[in-house]
This record gives sequence, C-alpha cells and structure tokens, in this order.
Amino acid sequence: MPISVETKRIAPPKRLIYGPGPAMVDPRAYEAMSQPIVGLRDPYFLSLLSEIQSGLRMVMGTDNKKTFVVPGSGSAAMEAAVANFVLPGSKFGVFAAGHFADRLSIMGRRQGATVVRLERPWGEVFSSEEAESFIAGEKPDVVAFVQAETSTGAYQTGKNITAAAKKHGALVIADCVTSVGAMPVELDAVGIDVAYSCGQKGLSCPSGLSPISISDAAWDKLAARPSEPYTWYLDLRLLANYYEPPHAYHHTPSPPLVYAMHQGLAVIEEEGLRNRWERHRRSGQRLVEGLQKLGFQHLVKNSEDRLWHITVVAPPAGVDEAKVREALMAKYGIEVAGGLGQLAGKILRIGTMGPLASDDSVDFILEAMAASL
Amino acid sequence: MPISVETKRIAPPKRLIYGPGPAMVDPRAYEAMSQPIVGLRDPYFLSLLSEIQSGLRMVMGTDNKKTFVVPGSGSAAMEAAVANFVLPGSKFGVFAAGHFADRLSIMGRRQGATVVRLERPWGEVFSSEEAESFIAGEKPDVVAFVQAETSTGAYQTGKNITAAAKKHGALVIADCVTSVGAMPVELDAVGIDVAYSCGQKGLSCPSGLSPISISDAAWDKLAARPSEPYTWYLDLRLLANYYEPPHAYHHTPSPPLVYAMHQGLAVIEEEGLRNRWERHRRSGQRLVEGLQKLGFQHLVKNSEDRLWHITVVAPPAGVDEAKVREALMAKYGIEVAGGLGQLAGKILRIGTMGPLASDDSVDFILEAMAASL
Repeated sequence: MPISVETKRIAPPKRLIYGPGPAMVDPRAYEAMSQPIVGLRDPYFLSLLSEIQSGLRMVMGTDNKKTFVVPGSGSAAMEAAVANFVLPGSKFGVFAAGHFADRLSIMGRRQGATVVRLERPWGEVFSSEEAESFIAGEKPDVVAFVQAETSTGAYQTGKNITAAAKKHGALVIADCVTSVGAMPVELDAVGIDVAYSCGQKGLSCPSGLSPISISDAAWDKLAARPSEPYTWYLDLRLLANYYEPPHAYHHTPSPPLVYAMHQGLAVIEEEGLRNRWERHRRSGQRLVEGLQKLGFQHLVKNSEDRLWHITVVAPPAGVDEAKVREALMAKYGIEVAGGLGQLAGKILRIGTMGPLASDDSVDFILEAMAASL
Repeated sequence: MPISVETKRIAPPKRLIYGPGPAMVDPRAYEAMSQPIVGLRDPYFLSLLSEIQSGLRMVMGTDNKKTFVVPGSGSAAMEAAVANFVLPGSKFGVFAAGHFADRLSIMGRRQGATVVRLERPWGEVFSSEEAESFIAGEKPDVVAFVQAETSTGAYQTGKNITAAAKKHGALVIADCVTSVGAMPVELDAVGIDVAYSCGQKGLSCPSGLSPISISDAAWDKLAARPSEPYTWYLDLRLLANYYEPPHAYHHTPSPPLVYAMHQGLAVIEEEGLRNRWERHRRSGQRLVEGLQKLGFQHLVKNSEDRLWHITVVAPPAGVDEAKVREALMAKYGIEVAGGLGQLAGKILRIGTMGPLASDDSVDFILEAMAASL
C-alpha cells in the first residue's frame, strides 16, 4: 500500500475570496488559531466560551440565555435546529425561495415531518399577507425562513412571518447563516424563536463552529419534548449542558475554532456592530452601482430586499459567467461563485464581507471584472 | 444589553496536556492553521484532501476507497457510522465494556434499532468464544466494538469479533477514535467494515475533523439502503460525493482543520507509522512501570490488552485522584483526566501521545506525580 501524503508544508496559493462564503478570515482569527490548545474544562477555555456567548447575543440581537455554538458548519446548526424542534409527525412550513430553504425542507422530511412549502421565485421575499394566509391555512407546528438567502442575495428580516406565526402559535426558525455579523439580525425585536448561523461569513472566521440561539419559550418546549431527537451529536439539550456547571463532557470541542470565533467577535465589538453593518451596506451599494455600469443585472429587483454583502447578478447578454470566473481566478487569484441549483450557469455571486467590505476592495474587484468581460 | 466579549487577544495559559485526548497538537499543525484559507473547490484544497485520504488509509491500514473525513468531532464520526449503517428496526449488537460502547448503544437506540449488548466489566476485552456465542445467539444485523476504549485503557484489535461477525453475516463497526495514529488499527487485516476516529488523539491534531473508512462491501450495502438516514449533515453518501468530480457542495469544510490534519499525517509519514507505534509502546511501558513503583494499579489486568498511549490507573490506597489532578495542574500546568461514569473518582487517565510519547516526557510526569501524592 503506497504512502502518498506529501510531506511538504501547507503553502496555499494566494486567493482573494470574494465568494458568498467562505469569506476572508480576519488576521486576528489566524493569529488565535496558532495559540496552544487547552483542555475542555480549563477555566480559561470556559471563560472564552462565556464571552463568545455574550458576543453572539450582541451580533444576533438577543438576550437569549441559550445562545452557544454547534460543533460543525452552518448546515450542522441548521440540522440542530430542525432535528430538535421539528418533531416526527408534525407539520413543518417552509418559506421557499432559494437553495437553503430547499435544504431546510429536506431536513424536515428526514425528521419525519410533513413539509408544506410556500414557494416564490428565487430571489423574492414574502409579504405579511402571504405569510398570514399560508400559516392560517396550513397551521404548521413550526415554520422556517431564510433571513439571508446566500443562493439568491435576498434578505428579509422575518417580521412579516413572525407576526403571522405568533398569531397562529407556530414556532419560527430563522436561517441567519449569512446575515449574522454583516446585517441586522435582531432576533428579539423580530420575534424569532430559534436562529442559527455560521462562522465563515459575517463573522470572518473559518467554518466549523456555528452559532445557535433559542428563546426561553422555545427552550421550554424543547425541554418538554416527549421523545429524544434522532441525533445525539446535535442534541441541543446535551450541547447546552456543557455551558453550565459542571460543564458535562459531551463532545470534544475544537479550541482553534473557539479561539478564532472569540477574536472574530472581539473584532466586531471593537469596530462597533452598527459601524460594521454600515460598512457592509456602503460597500455593497458601491459594488451594485459599479456592476450596473458594467451591464450586470441584480437578481433581486427591490433594492430593499437585497443583502448588503452578497451581490447576486446576471451577466450582460452574451457573457458566460463561468468564463468570467475563470478569468478572475487566472489573472487575479479572485474567487467568486456561480449559481446553485436552478441558477447554475446564470448568475455570479460576489461577497464583500469582513476585510473585503471596503471601497478599495470593491473598486479592485470592479476593475478586475471589467477586465474579465 | 451589555457587550461583554473582552477585546483581548487569545493568550492561553501554558498547559501540558497529558490527558486521554484532546492531546498535545503537533507544532506543524499549528503552523498549518495559520495559513490562509482557500475555497472549497480550489484545486489546491482538493489535492490536500486527496493526500489526506491516502494518509488516512496508511494510518488505518486499509485500501478502502471510501476513506475520508467527517466534519465534526469523533462523536460526529461515531454518529455518522451508526446513523448510516444501523437501520431503524434492525438489531444492533454492542460489545460493551466502557463509556464509548455506551455512547454507541445510545446512538443505536436513537436510530430506532433494537440494541442488544454483550457486557463485561469496564477494562476487560472480549474473547472469540464470547463473540461467537453472542452473535450466533442474537443474530444482530450490525455489531460494534471499541478498539481502544479511552474510558478504561483497554485495547482489542477486533479479530475475535470480526471472525464471528463474518460467519453470521453481521456488519462490523469499530470505534478507532483513540487507536488511529498511535497503535495498530489494521482495518483490512482485522476485517472491519466501518471504522471511525478523531483528530485530537493519535494524529496530534485539534478536534473538529474525524476520519471514517468504509469497505467496498459495506459501501455497496449503504448504496442500496432503502431509506435515507435521519441525518443530512452526516449522510455518508452525500459527504462522499464531494471527494469525486464534480466535487458537489454539501457543507462548507474548515480549511484550517484540513490543513492541520494534512500535516498531522505528514508528520506520521516522516517518522514512519511503525516507528511511531513503537515510540508509543515504549513510552507507555515506561509510564506503567514508573506508576507501579509509585503504587498505582493498572485497571486493565492483562498487559497485552492495554492501550500503549493511554494509561488508566487506580491511585494507591488513601490517595484522592482529584487532589492529584489539582496538584498537577497547580504546580506544573499538567492536565490529566479522572474517570468517566462508573469510574468517576476512582482512576486517573494519563495520555502519552504524539509529542509527549518520549522518555523525557514520561519521566517528567512521573516526577510530577511523585511530588503530588
């Protein structure tokens, strides 16, 4: 049996990652990951986790006590939300207008729920009348929507949905994978019961550790859940135990990822959350204006429904999006993304997040794109 | 709402982690994690993953094509194995003599299987006669055993179990969380169908990314599985797709953890796997002899059934294990572990893995322990 791991050191090519996530990692997060690990009950480690909980409450706009991290990517956090709150035999309503709403639907079916969907064309958002009519008609136990749809660039706070859900007693799960750290999330103000996110987008961290936050009322429901979820690894009750004395061992956490997230949050605190939002808003606007001049068309027609930090555009007539991506990578080491699913081959997705949410970075990619058409 | 993430940099206290895992991380892995991320379809990233697959085949002793990593801790890999191969309504036989066999049982029940257990006192291993009688009597569809029981320090290759399982057509899952990289695993020679491990023990990496390997025959069974597993995040068929062109996006992998595992495997390749085993064997023997002189008693009576790199001992009469641990931490920054479950308060678990599997490191902890009694 040949041994073929090459013994070279890690020396990645220099990339400028202007994709929809993973996004560029903050230098402070890299510095943090090179620090030595400590044990999972080390007081130092527990103090970092506690500060991360506070930082997550800040970026997610919530006082939820049950705010912590799930040991996996954003999809692990999505599965944690669905597997714990969507019970076998229950009815799960999904507001579907993009790839990640489809993923929520798939996960709901795997839990044995009946999934009902309110569908709109990809790139659109939902009105309060639609939400009311859907929830009143279907009477789902739980509904889910995507606050920031990475596949389409559409954003909706969720207020249109939470009002109707509250009226009819449905629990609300929000996918905030892409919004946290870059745009308003505001769980408490919007009235979201369960929300999850990731590390590798608005928090400027690597993937692998993902925030989740659960309201007191939703936690009470979970605590009274009659059956255990199928998943042990993503059982939120077991995960939450670790945050309280005696900090019961569940799984072995990853100190480098915890260190990185701590620093990602610290960097946001230093800048100020609202300043950071405004920086992302300004950069996104500059990018959209520049792309329009180059003949690109935004997929999301209403400018108020657009993500600030992920811009999803159709190329000018006759331009092949794949060729643009190839040219950007070959000439500049720039990575942008194409479309997922029904948008494959039709659009480009450009992220201007964290370190890349600046005038200079926007101007740089605009110049590179102009030269790549 | 107060913002309380402190803005300080990460500066962990200096710890010497002689626990059963997480274990000390190789300096090359830290260096790797500070390197910049690349995208998940970057050719550089895909080449590292391919080298990791080869390296994992080397340390796991297998030619299995389906050898890759699960995006989570060792328990995520355990759940991936159980959730994909233990079907609802099937019979799952667990060889139970420690904490992690209990975890396997719990996961099997959550999948809706009937779990039958062959129990022995913690710290013991199973004979071929026992395995034959259990499997012939219960006729389980799948059996699982723990090759290296971190909670007790017991090791068994699994040959006693695979022979009986093969005879009666049961699929064999092996928990190799603690053996991989430090001791013989030898999946193909032993005849194990599905095995999983972790990063933070014998591979000298941080937690967060965990190897799994599946034989061709087991993969054929999985490919023909009539129902989808409850888990989407840990669905092995979806995870495996990413390793083949067109490298379909499933979840966002964590480049720093991938970089670290690549270097962990490269370091093993440089040393030579058999040299590394021998280094762990010698260190463990030196530690056991030294501890015996101090009046400690090994939990595993038969020396051939002992892990080389995790030594589980009861303290001399009248010595409180918790006080020993406190003294080691206070005076030396040394972390060792106490017992889990039924062994809590009764034993110490001492790991001499990776960078700590050396005469000097063994002598250092022996001196520290002598001074802490």
